[in-house]
Amino acid sequence: MQIVLIGAGRLATNLAVALHQVGHDIVAVYSRTMQSAQELAQRVGACPTDRIDKLPVRADAFILSVSDNALEDIARQVVKGREEQIFFHTAGSMSIDVLAHARHYGVFYPMQSFSKERLVDFSVIPLFVEGSDDQTLQTALALADSIKAKAYPLSSADRQYLHVAAVFACNFANHCYALSAEVLQRHGIDFRVMLPLIDETARKVHQLTPVEAQTGPAVRNDMNVVTHHLDLLSSTPWLATIYEEFSKDIQRTALTK
Amino acid sequence: MQIVLIGAGRLATNLAVALHQVGHDIVAVYSRTMQSAQELAQRVGACPTDRIDKLPVRADAFILSVSDNALEDIARQVVKGREEQIFFHTAGSMSIDVLAHARHYGVFYPMQSFSKERLVDFSVIPLFVEGSDDQTLQTALALADSIKAKAYPLSSADRQYLHVAAVFACNFANHCYALSAEVLQRHGIDFRVMLPLIDETARKVHQLTPVEAQTGPAVRNDMNVVTHHLDLLSSTPWLATIYEEFSKDIQRTALTK
Repeated sequence: MQIVLIGAGRLATNLAVALHQVGHDIVAVYSRTMQSAQELAQRVGACPTDRIDKLPVRADAFILSVSDNALEDIARQVVKGREEQIFFHTAGSMSIDVLAHARHYGVFYPMQSFSKERLVDFSVIPLFVEGSDDQTLQTALALADSIKAKAYPLSSADRQYLHVAAVFACNFANHCYALSAEVLQRHGIDFRVMLPLIDETARKVHQLTPVEAQTGPAVRNDMNVVTHHLDLLSSTPWLATIYEEFSKDIQRTALTK
Repeated sequence: MQIVLIGAGRLATNLAVALHQVGHDIVAVYSRTMQSAQELAQRVGACPTDRIDKLPVRADAFILSVSDNALEDIARQVVKGREEQIFFHTAGSMSIDVLAHARHYGVFYPMQSFSKERLVDFSVIPLFVEGSDDQTLQTALALADSIKAKAYPLSSADRQYLHVAAVFACNFANHCYALSAEVLQRHGIDFRVMLPLIDETARKVHQLTPVEAQTGPAVRNDMNVVTHHLDLLSSTPWLATIYEEFSKDIQRTALTK
């Protein structure tokens, strides 16, 4: 396919390189600054530009991969005069409707954190797609398939819950690491001693559901240990509060097993 | 060294095999049941027994690796008549004092979850050691060194906080996965889509502190998204409560950066 890429950030870079590698023709790359456009264009044999009006008026797909804040404004400019083309945005937290002034529009959202330096392997990243019509959805699925990504059709409404779920599994799990580090630091213990257990905890949910994988005093209903731990945390009440609530909530979810 | 192993469970098995492989002589293995004692003894060329009074009266180290509940009682029986020997227990949550009726005693605690089938590589597991005297501590360090484990001397008092920290980093992080799965399930999304992000979140804290590694709406202070997510969770108030408290606490820890 002939593809126009609007954006040259981390996600745009990873996507453009992957699409180029499997034989798609990245015809043009737009970025607000010519330097960013050139950097990415050079990697994928595309034509760089910092002016939206210089972009081709026809292509098999226009992919907008810009910041959430800029998306609405740039979408309006890109769609103008190209209403019959197919447009995708890649923003997990934005509705498909931000592109609704085009005829064919959709979402192409690979869920992972990206960097420009370390290119990701799309075959291990879930890719959530949505289309305003069947032709657009099929184009998204074909693009995903070409880079060997596993594609999941998902509505904008459900994608909001996907985002909430990612906050729990990633930001909040990471915060548990931070609280662990806070306890260790108060007792002069290096946080890195916890890494093998952290890795094992992440590995286990590849085999078991998180509820099945749970261990520790709360799920064992070992209230002697829970009470003793709350005593140990009495000088840091903010940690004791979270310890107590999580222990109770672990017991709630254990009942669903 | 000549070593007597009391216990034939998961930790005992991993430890005995690792010590045997680097050339220590596992002279005897005790278990409550002869079958368990035989299974492990066979793997390490030791003499099996289900009677404590049949164990040797002298060895370079006696390692007790039994359940927390059984430790105090078995320790008393094993030490009796062997008061001048060196004893270690491997229980992370038990004080060194449970062995205090011996002359030389200590703790040898490798912090990881073990299984009998998949043997672990001790070189990537932190091993916490403690000794009643310098000779015992040096014996623990020599044993750790022989199996290439990184040993950390740690008092029983501080080891309690290590356990609390492990509850946060492992049990509570795993509970965040469970809450994520709960949100996804309500919207028909397969939990496995979250695994690449979970893995990346665990990987990141090998390079950055958890506070540095934090991303997402709370740490960006993006209250529009936080409020929107709380709206989405209004029909599951137990999830909304945790979402709100964790978002606040992420902002508290961000101030410590």
